[in-house]
Amino acid sequence: MTDQLFESSDSQRHARELKHIKTARFNKPFDLERGGQLPNVTVAYETYGRLSPTRDNAVLICHALSGDSHVAQHDADDDPGWWDIMVGPGKPIDTDRFFVICPNILGGCRGTTGPNCVNPATGRPYGGDFPAITVGDLVHSQKMLVDHLGVDRLLAVVGGSLGGHMTLDWAVRYPDRLAGAVALATSAQLTSQALAFDVVGRNAILRDPAYHNGQYYDQPDGPRVGLALARMLAHITYLSREAMMRKFDTDRFAPRDIQTDFETRFSVGSYLAYQGDRFGQRFDANSYLTLTMAIDLFNLGDTPAQLAAALRPATCRWLLVSYSSDWLFPKFQSQYLVDALVAGNKPVSYCDVETTCGHDAFLLPNDLDRYGEMIRAFLANLHEPPRDVTGEENDEEPSRAFANPKSIFHRHHRIDYDSIVELIPPGASVLDLGCGTGGLLAQLRRRGHRHIMGLERDERAILGAVRRGLDVVQADLNEGLDAFNDKQFDFVLLSQTLQTIIDVRRVLDEMLRVGRRAIVSFPNLGYEAYRRELAEGGRAPRGDDGEDHQWYNTPNVRFLTIADFETFCNEQKIDILKRVWLDTRRQEHVENDPNRNANLAILVLSR
Amino acid sequence: MTDQLFESSDSQRHARELKHIKTARFNKPFDLERGGQLPNVTVAYETYGRLSPTRDNAVLICHALSGDSHVAQHDADDDPGWWDIMVGPGKPIDTDRFFVICPNILGGCRGTTGPNCVNPATGRPYGGDFPAITVGDLVHSQKMLVDHLGVDRLLAVVGGSLGGHMTLDWAVRYPDRLAGAVALATSAQLTSQALAFDVVGRNAILRDPAYHNGQYYDQPDGPRVGLALARMLAHITYLSREAMMRKFDTDRFAPRDIQTDFETRFSVGSYLAYQGDRFGQRFDANSYLTLTMAIDLFNLGDTPAQLAAALRPATCRWLLVSYSSDWLFPKFQSQYLVDALVAGNKPVSYCDVETTCGHDAFLLPNDLDRYGEMIRAFLANLHEPPRDVTGEENDEEPSRAFANPKSIFHRHHRIDYDSIVELIPPGASVLDLGCGTGGLLAQLRRRGHRHIMGLERDERAILGAVRRGLDVVQADLNEGLDAFNDKQFDFVLLSQTLQTIIDVRRVLDEMLRVGRRAIVSFPNLGYEAYRRELAEGGRAPRGDDGEDHQWYNTPNVRFLTIADFETFCNEQKIDILKRVWLDTRRQEHVENDPNRNANLAILVLSR
Repeated sequence: MTDQLFESSDSQRHARELKHIKTARFNKPFDLERGGQLPNVTVAYETYGRLSPTRDNAVLICHALSGDSHVAQHDADDDPGWWDIMVGPGKPIDTDRFFVICPNILGGCRGTTGPNCVNPATGRPYGGDFPAITVGDLVHSQKMLVDHLGVDRLLAVVGGSLGGHMTLDWAVRYPDRLAGAVALATSAQLTSQALAFDVVGRNAILRDPAYHNGQYYDQPDGPRVGLALARMLAHITYLSREAMMRKFDTDRFAPRDIQTDFETRFSVGSYLAYQGDRFGQRFDANSYLTLTMAIDLFNLGDTPAQLAAALRPATCRWLLVSYSSDWLFPKFQSQYLVDALVAGNKPVSYCDVETTCGHDAFLLPNDLDRYGEMIRAFLANLHEPPRDVTGEENDEEPSRAFANPKSIFHRHHRIDYDSIVELIPPGASVLDLGCGTGGLLAQLRRRGHRHIMGLERDERAILGAVRRGLDVVQADLNEGLDAFNDKQFDFVLLSQTLQTIIDVRRVLDEMLRVGRRAIVSFPNLGYEAYRRELAEGGRAPRGDDGEDHQWYNTPNVRFLTIADFETFCNEQKIDILKRVWLDTRRQEHVENDPNRNANLAILVLSR
Repeated sequence: MTDQLFESSDSQRHARELKHIKTARFNKPFDLERGGQLPNVTVAYETYGRLSPTRDNAVLICHALSGDSHVAQHDADDDPGWWDIMVGPGKPIDTDRFFVICPNILGGCRGTTGPNCVNPATGRPYGGDFPAITVGDLVHSQKMLVDHLGVDRLLAVVGGSLGGHMTLDWAVRYPDRLAGAVALATSAQLTSQALAFDVVGRNAILRDPAYHNGQYYDQPDGPRVGLALARMLAHITYLSREAMMRKFDTDRFAPRDIQTDFETRFSVGSYLAYQGDRFGQRFDANSYLTLTMAIDLFNLGDTPAQLAAALRPATCRWLLVSYSSDWLFPKFQSQYLVDALVAGNKPVSYCDVETTCGHDAFLLPNDLDRYGEMIRAFLANLHEPPRDVTGEENDEEPSRAFANPKSIFHRHHRIDYDSIVELIPPGASVLDLGCGTGGLLAQLRRRGHRHIMGLERDERAILGAVRRGLDVVQADLNEGLDAFNDKQFDFVLLSQTLQTIIDVRRVLDEMLRVGRRAIVSFPNLGYEAYRRELAEGGRAPRGDDGEDHQWYNTPNVRFLTIADFETFCNEQKIDILKRVWLDTRRQEHVENDPNRNANLAILVLSR
């Protein structure tokens, strides 16, 4: 079967690439999720690196719609892989360290059973008779391969786009079979917009007179026009508007000189024509129909409650990444997944990587310094837990500057951290808002706290926290903490961030809803030296941020004294349970008249 | 000719609608911009309201790609028009007041000469031989109609999308023939993304085997599949993602029961199938090819300099509106036009209307309360200049609260306005940053200033300023004043807004670049009462904003004293030419020790 199927769709493929493809044949009926069965299944796959003696280093990579098993070059003579930037020796998914498995997916046309394979029942290719399959079926066939390879538990499943759908499905379908899940540029279901593009693409194929109800393999030509139209359209959705501007705006009316029967009046037109024609040569229209339908039917839940229920079985650690200019799988969809994971107390890190590369960003090198390094750090920490967890290292906060540029301490030992840690009972669960690179959380972890996580806005700070093996989710505090349940954490911290927040009341309300206790620290404008700066010097107090910020460039946008905050708590019916006052210039605790003598207040609150 | 052409594409059209269509036949060769000519041209059009005796009330409406002359119902028995929300008695384009002309466009298929009309040279429909036409050709044919109707000068040309392109072209091609231009959801050229969608749509038609090189009128069927695919695809681009979610997410897997040969598995699929089939019945594929190509070739300039040069001939007053969720004609494209107009000292108002309706927003009632009312006010002020300009009214600022929620004066007479006005020599040109509803600008206009304009962020404040007949452009001051030339204005004002701006230095740099002089007013934190609040009361000073704002909800994010600002000017090499200090609690000017005695500073600056 696998020998035959490359003929129709794959004549261009290099022999030196093919030599690395292995196949696993499963000669028993394969039951399909939506009913029916396939009489047998073959899975084509490639592997990289070596399985460790303890079999704890296998990483499964799930490719997207038009990918295949050739995720990376095997050696210098090999053809390029579709994810060479990510997979290889020393790469983020390091084949010197990990055993990488990449199967071609069920329903595809690159070696694994799909519509262009012979149906044993008829002796002809399945064609349009290939049954409807689901993402669950794809994952089921991969799990058979993983069993076949003798891997009981994958270190991680990694995938983007449709590969991300498969990663999500893996985590909930076979929760005990993976330690980590890395889902990139994906979603719990397509947007109606993305679904609509797929519908138009399928209609272009199905209404192509050369489609012949899917039995075109013995015809002189298949639905190449329809498939090319579908691909052109899809291609637009993979690029961002900015990327298209970069690529085509300068020579808009200067098409490339290519051989095609499609319109080539504009540069973008010649590009699309080329992409469409080329896709028609290497991909099978029936696979396109089959796999886009699997994507379109994928649905982990229509509501947050349904989604949380769907994700409940998962026990793995999570890393999700979205890409800011991806409008096919927009970031709100990843956030929706992250929200459901967070609400279910799943260990998850998430970042929306700032990029102009659109949906394709996860395949491109442009932003690899962030998402690639996050994946590298995530896998490394999955494989070997951070040393402070194992008691081997007492790491010190390198910098909290990303999150708190206005830290009044950051060139000194953080006695405010010590004070905050002392206010938290051992073992308490903690959410740190504006956690930076996670210094305070790491301090808590060293102390034995296990259920801890952070929220942070800056992507490089998030990378720092992921490197530490912490769970950190990108969020803008001004948008609230909707994802979290009431009283989900024992403590919610806001350390030296209050003064940078516009919507103070909302953030405090949310902290007191999500935490049994909240701990807030902020600089006190009532500090004697600050009073004198204004009263005697006639100058707006500048604070002690060590950054030499001025009134016109400080990140601080809220100015308050301890007395102001106490009044606020009184008005808002917030109880102040404990008060710690510090004079950080003198590095000492303050007991007397804190509104005059302390430059930093730390308060434990509840409601 | 016009009798024949409805047969092929328009059999559904009601006779009662057709009875209102008039035609103007021009039996002479019509030269085309890209070479060649049409032997003659017929323009089908409808009119509403009455041309005034002075012929000063004619409004020309340019329809978009698939529109026609039937912009609105003529009477209760008439079929609905495509813009009934905008055009009619008492509507924003008020047919009780204005004489509205709406022609079907050249190349269309609803009465005006197009590919489905008989080519006199062959006796057969033009079909695929219809020549390539441009937006300029469309406008040329409309100008012939306007001449034919005896209108020397249109009050305004109004159009959205392709109609917006035509409006832009009108303004630069026949500048003395219109007083105002209203361009909605449009651009100087398509984005490469939008262009790419058109390319795919055209390829779907051109590669449909039933296209027959465009001579399908005598065939049993035309390229209905290709046209339907093009329409489905275009339809997606007219809707926003949010609008599609609203429409289709709740019943994603529950398609409507319709008769179609297209896929109907999903609700959005059945919707697209319906739209595609219906469009194939009412629209001509050759017109679709002809008109999308005219759109795709439209290009007022690739660079800001080219665009400014292209717009230079225009002498009309401008109103541009974009729609926040329109991703086909995204707001940056309207801003790009506005920037070029602004750089050329053209009188222009602009607003990006907040909406979830996508490109279609300009055809929908959802946001009419803003864009409709702006158009109403703009046309009314074009027709009859604001009364304070004619000396009939001395209007008083109703509220500047939108722009300056922290106005310390807004319940009193604005003596700060008086002070600012006194600092400006008569006749000087003025740009007011954060102008609100334009109270200060109106005061200047009453004083005789003519070259004045405002920037404002809030769309309802912009509406207020447009109602006053002022030129106001939506802008976020934190993003700078890139559009403006060096020294474009005599004075640039920032009245009580400095303290709400994050990037103070940039805004001041920009003011001093764009203005020969800048005038800045801001509250002085060094005011004696404020000092006492902090020094003696231990409270962050609350200011005098009359709004009872607290430290946690004030719009103010910058805190400075007069001394701080003077130091800043010294460091930044900004000259302070004049200083006015006010104590607004006492409603008096301050002479002595202003850093202690004034609560408001007004400074004239230059560099």
